[in-house]
Amino acid sequence: MTSDSDVVAPLRSRLQEIEDLGGAISLLTWDQSVTMPPGGAEARGRQLATLGRLRHERWLDPELERDLAAVERDVPDGATADLVRVVRHDLERASRVPNDYVARSAAHAAASYDAWLDARRTGAVERVVGMLERTLDLSLEYAGFFPEVAHPADALIDDADEGATVASLRPLFGRLRDELVPRVAAWSGAPPPPPLPAGPFAVDEQLAAALELAQAFGYDLGRGRQDLTAHPFAIRFAHGDVRITTRVKPDDLTEVLFSTLHEAGHAMYEQGVDPGLEGTPLAEGASAGVHESQARLWENQVARSRAFWHFALPRLQRRFPALAGVDADGAFRAVNRVRRSLIRTDADEVTYNLHVIVRFDLEIELLEGRLAVRDLADAWAERYAADLGVTPTGAVDGWLQDVHWFAGTIGGSFQGYTLGNVLSAQFFAAAAREVGDVEAHMAAGDFAPLRAWLTENVYRHGRSKPVDRLVHDATGGPLDVEPYLAYLDRKFGGLAGVR
Amino acid sequence: MTSDSDVVAPLRSRLQEIEDLGGAISLLTWDQSVTMPPGGAEARGRQLATLGRLRHERWLDPELERDLAAVERDVPDGATADLVRVVRHDLERASRVPNDYVARSAAHAAASYDAWLDARRTGAVERVVGMLERTLDLSLEYAGFFPEVAHPADALIDDADEGATVASLRPLFGRLRDELVPRVAAWSGAPPPPPLPAGPFAVDEQLAAALELAQAFGYDLGRGRQDLTAHPFAIRFAHGDVRITTRVKPDDLTEVLFSTLHEAGHAMYEQGVDPGLEGTPLAEGASAGVHESQARLWENQVARSRAFWHFALPRLQRRFPALAGVDADGAFRAVNRVRRSLIRTDADEVTYNLHVIVRFDLEIELLEGRLAVRDLADAWAERYAADLGVTPTGAVDGWLQDVHWFAGTIGGSFQGYTLGNVLSAQFFAAAAREVGDVEAHMAAGDFAPLRAWLTENVYRHGRSKPVDRLVHDATGGPLDVEPYLAYLDRKFGGLAGVR
Repeated sequence: MTSDSDVVAPLRSRLQEIEDLGGAISLLTWDQSVTMPPGGAEARGRQLATLGRLRHERWLDPELERDLAAVERDVPDGATADLVRVVRHDLERASRVPNDYVARSAAHAAASYDAWLDARRTGAVERVVGMLERTLDLSLEYAGFFPEVAHPADALIDDADEGATVASLRPLFGRLRDELVPRVAAWSGAPPPPPLPAGPFAVDEQLAAALELAQAFGYDLGRGRQDLTAHPFAIRFAHGDVRITTRVKPDDLTEVLFSTLHEAGHAMYEQGVDPGLEGTPLAEGASAGVHESQARLWENQVARSRAFWHFALPRLQRRFPALAGVDADGAFRAVNRVRRSLIRTDADEVTYNLHVIVRFDLEIELLEGRLAVRDLADAWAERYAADLGVTPTGAVDGWLQDVHWFAGTIGGSFQGYTLGNVLSAQFFAAAAREVGDVEAHMAAGDFAPLRAWLTENVYRHGRSKPVDRLVHDATGGPLDVEPYLAYLDRKFGGLAGVR
Repeated sequence: MTSDSDVVAPLRSRLQEIEDLGGAISLLTWDQSVTMPPGGAEARGRQLATLGRLRHERWLDPELERDLAAVERDVPDGATADLVRVVRHDLERASRVPNDYVARSAAHAAASYDAWLDARRTGAVERVVGMLERTLDLSLEYAGFFPEVAHPADALIDDADEGATVASLRPLFGRLRDELVPRVAAWSGAPPPPPLPAGPFAVDEQLAAALELAQAFGYDLGRGRQDLTAHPFAIRFAHGDVRITTRVKPDDLTEVLFSTLHEAGHAMYEQGVDPGLEGTPLAEGASAGVHESQARLWENQVARSRAFWHFALPRLQRRFPALAGVDADGAFRAVNRVRRSLIRTDADEVTYNLHVIVRFDLEIELLEGRLAVRDLADAWAERYAADLGVTPTGAVDGWLQDVHWFAGTIGGSFQGYTLGNVLSAQFFAAAAREVGDVEAHMAAGDFAPLRAWLTENVYRHGRSKPVDRLVHDATGGPLDVEPYLAYLDRKFGGLAGVR
């Protein structure tokens, strides 16, 4: 007699190999940002391309299809339904994309990134415009591998946020924009709160302070570590090794604090996935949006709450005597200032989504051929003036500010940020309802009840539930902007009122 | 018309893929020792096994054989003779070793390493004895894949020091042993020189001081970096990325200095290989012995010379005021004390080879079945008493002191150290003859002429010359112990005489 596990074993073994290659690729990427000397760059690009190709070849191996079909046929009892659904989805997508496209787009991404760096340094944008035109062509070529989609962007969005489409996102983002534009105008007009004292603060102390708080949240350093990079990120090599990076400003503690706690949110999600999913695509996060929601939840709902600062401030004051004159309420106000901004990554949590929606809308216009790359700078400036009330001084604080379009595709890169903000409020509201006393727990530095709820309802499932089911099971309803708007009004309406 | 490069291109492309996998494997290994959190260990073992298997499969791919045969057949003009010779050699060796042996021996090495760590911690040796018996079986099984060799150890030695055999090494090591035993007895009996002042010295300053000297030698940090590990090593990911690790004792500067300068010697060799050899097996060092010779040359012939201390001491004194009362001659004497020792890695350069020869002889006896693993501890103690005049106090300072037998095979692991010592004296003597004034250059901190000679005669060739040809071309003669003995007598005979 053949047991189910005998049928599944060959598939698992192939998936494990793909995961092991993925872990090695992630380490090559991490090292490239964190530790690699400059001389290593050329070979590293080649090593990444080689391992990426080997991994793609494994997805296209007819024996993987055969082993997957055997599980689909012979294990009908639902025990492997999630695994089969996700692997079939990934295999279907991988098999649409020819190896030569993977090689061409990887080579173009490297050249394009180089041109972007150069344009930011020198201000000479001609070369990067040409690169971006080619990126648009490649993005449309990619979309063409999925002729069944209703909109070319859907093919690109689906890779990051499976199931989301232009048709579903447009009304959501349109509503948000309409709600947020007047709020930003009102709240940014209030007199600004006094900022936190400027340092200088010693780098080592800053890193230790941020890491102490991340550990209080539950980030496990036995299965992680923290390093410095220009652009913070979280990355998983395996269930037992999920690392974060952060950055430091000598005179501004909020940089290291919110970078670290944001990335720790990403990392705690991956550390909390059921270890039984290790070695399969189910061990990842559910989607870009859900991943971002976990980072945003810890960064904003928790670490920008008044309750958190009752806990955190005394700890920070022990390390940084310059904070002696601040109280928790003052700190809470200081880290929640709403202001019109040009740079997405510096934006407060209210304004942030307007940055995202501009990019999302411009991606759609580019893909639909209604906007030429050559006219992007002007369109960008117009939208910033209309939505955010500010105008870029140049390309670097305008359309060249984000790396995404210059290291990947046009389409699919940005919607996850705003989906994450919206979901963070839904998840937090549901957790607060079910756990109870979340504010009191946070003020006491007891983050275990919140983390336990997130582990039970989000983390442990990894990618084994589709996003809509995950959200429904955890919050009792579908994706919904109302909890997010209610959260903003409660927090920022109150803050504006008392000033 | 087909050009030679058209014929060679497919072979080069396959070799590049193997090298890229090798670079990734090296990074996974480096990270395991330098940066990985403890939770990453289990997955890392699996990732290394997977990538090792993929690389081995690439060696066994019939298309590699076909592409190599095409070059052998169609490019007869010698332009690719070195490449073909080395690739044919490696392919022949790889094709003898079945994939299941690679998997079994890798799994055993991991378990054995674990048992070794445990035995060193707890003193319970029973499990590690059992492991070592299995290691001996696996080593003999490996030797059996090469039935043409005269001695089973030859199969294992050839992987590290191609061309060396038990028949060629036995008389060499026998002669050395006979020469060194009385020298150690005489020189270790002289009154000891005053040691360098003990610190404590700040770790950061120690690392910076050692790295400053390594850079003065020519180690290029634009293509390298230094980190801390329990056991120092050098490792290459690519021509542009060759890293070293070192270790620090708070109260003993010599630890960081000689660890760093030894590993910098290994790294400068790999940094100096002709970049045109990148992406092929020719980009590595010529053999374990030649590699060690380059580390030993910088560590001993240079950094333990009187001339070097004239240059280095003032620099160290600027960082470490505790050294104020030392003069260059005193430092030279302090770092060249000969003493009977139990631990190989702590041994002075005279005694060091006796440690190696004991291990080499015991490996041969184990492989020949004349010594049982169970009797190894006694045999070890007997040889240490006879050759070095000391007796281990236990397993940790006896037969369990080195990791080699517990992470690899019995046979082939140790001969390279003594070949390296012997060759270091030959290369240095040849360089001194041809460059002239080497002592004066070193005293002035000008290491460029020596490095240029080594680059021209050793580094740039990588693995493209067989060891005997490399040695002959560089030194004018074959491997020879006389320059080494003459060097020791000149240095240590003089030191013992003046005390």
